[in-house]
Amino acid sequence: MDKLYEGKAKIIYPGPEEGVVRVYFKDDATAFNGQKRAQIAGKGAVNNRISAALFRYLEARGVPTHFVRELSEREMLVKQVQIVPLEVIVRNRTAGTFSRRYGVEEGRVLPEPLLEFSYKNDALGDPLIYGEAAIALGLVTDEELSRIRELALRVNGLLRDYFARRGLELVDFKLEFGRLPDGGLVLADEISPDTMRLWEMKTGEKMDKDRFRRDLGGVEEAYQEVLRRVLEAPASA
Amino acid sequence: MDKLYEGKAKIIYPGPEEGVVRVYFKDDATAFNGQKRAQIAGKGAVNNRISAALFRYLEARGVPTHFVRELSEREMLVKQVQIVPLEVIVRNRTAGTFSRRYGVEEGRVLPEPLLEFSYKNDALGDPLIYGEAAIALGLVTDEELSRIRELALRVNGLLRDYFARRGLELVDFKLEFGRLPDGGLVLADEISPDTMRLWEMKTGEKMDKDRFRRDLGGVEEAYQEVLRRVLEAPASA
Ligand SMILES: Nc1ncnc2c1ncn2[C@@H]1O[C@H](COP(=O)(O)OP(=O)(O)O)[C@@H](O)[C@H]1O
Ligand SMILES: Nc1ncnc2c1ncn2[C@@H]1O[C@H](COP(=O)(O)OP(=O)(O)O)[C@@H](O)[C@H]1O
Ligand SMILES: [Mg+2]
Ligand SMILES: [Mg+2]
Repeated sequence: MDKLYEGKAKIIYPGPEEGVVRVYFKDDATAFNGQKRAQIAGKGAVNNRISAALFRYLEARGVPTHFVRELSEREMLVKQVQIVPLEVIVRNRTAGTFSRRYGVEEGRVLPEPLLEFSYKNDALGDPLIYGEAAIALGLVTDEELSRIRELALRVNGLLRDYFARRGLELVDFKLEFGRLPDGGLVLADEISPDTMRLWEMKTGEKMDKDRFRRDLGGVEEAYQEVLRRVLEAPASA
Repeated sequence: MDKLYEGKAKIIYPGPEEGVVRVYFKDDATAFNGQKRAQIAGKGAVNNRISAALFRYLEARGVPTHFVRELSEREMLVKQVQIVPLEVIVRNRTAGTFSRRYGVEEGRVLPEPLLEFSYKNDALGDPLIYGEAAIALGLVTDEELSRIRELALRVNGLLRDYFARRGLELVDFKLEFGRLPDGGLVLADEISPDTMRLWEMKTGEKMDKDRFRRDLGGVEEAYQEVLRRVLEAPASA
């Protein structure tokens, strides 16, 4: 079937009816703005299942998402949205780009969660942007940005709890939001070890895409272990 | 006399008494984080005189500054402060780094003045930073940042008027703020064609450091012309 869009990690296909699309999760992994590329065996299936579980968990707690249902091992059905061209990053500890950019060690606990935005534009290298500039450039409205801030912080609280119950610390993560035809905003894209930093609470081990970025080995195993913990469903999750 | 600090454009010497320092303005010009270097004949003298005139103008209109008095052609006396390690940029039109970073043409009028911050750190390349991160990293307090925002926007309004009366449009500029021993914030450093973009209103010609950055020629002449207009003191300036 004709693709609507093929990105670095997923392919978007038309859905069975108007207003919905199929998201196919690939095994392709890229890092450093596409400069490093490889395949991570089984990643697509893992990310599809983890994303589905997290969207369901968040929806049940009042966060609107694009998720409709799982279609197959590697595919989910979602509401088609117009993506707000911002990567919304929430940071609980310093790490990654933030640490490099500002010359601070990794793992410093932030006094409160930091909300950061990048302009989602591969040609420009997804540059850091601040709220007022995003509004001035017409990427998002003032009202949308307030709503995005509120939702991102709520998602952070919910996901931190969720992973803490599974022995994983949520260090940071990236969200994307989309506009429905009625203008309402929903959480879109994916939430997976490709888009979060998760640290094993007991050992401090990295359980996310940093294993790939930094050639730490055990990449497939880490993704599988996160899925295992997501599926084990402890009390009150 | 022993320098306290030598930067890219200025040298700081001890003052005649505690609490004040001498700022000596050099002819040295650098661009692109120090990668491009040259001398601009007479620049030091021009920037000293322009900065002095602007600090006096702003002080008279209620903006606290570090300025005490001019000492010589190239030197001014200022209150010694602890510099807040932020470059505070105010933008009225898109230009320079902003245009390159976000892929927008130069000269687009912004719906309202944009306030932007860089972490003043040469080794890191003065990276863009957002307010919450600057606070989290301890570069500035929440209260200081609110005060900086308020002062920077006031300075923008005052300087736009000032230059408009002289046939120059203030496109953007960089400010630095410093802490006095009592904790009060004052406008510090310099305000000159090295730190502002000024466009001739009738011709659109660049009258600032962009002539040097972009090898447009007529660098000395542009600096001298800005000084001439600053000194001509039209009615109600
Ligand atoms: N519900 C949705 N409707 C339309 N587009 C979506 C939806 N959810 C995510 N997208 C977009 O689909 C693409 C997913 O593919 P991905 O491989 O992540 O692309 P990219 O390399 O651009 O990040 C992204 O551009 C993402 O913004
Ligand atoms: N009133 C002041 N007291 C102390 N330091 C100041 C004051 N005003 C400016 N400075 C600092 O003095 C230095 C001026 O020299 P400059 O050549 O501009 O340096 P740089 O290359 O670091 O920008 C800057 O670091 C600036 O922050
Ligand atoms: Mg993506
Ligand atoms: Mg300087």
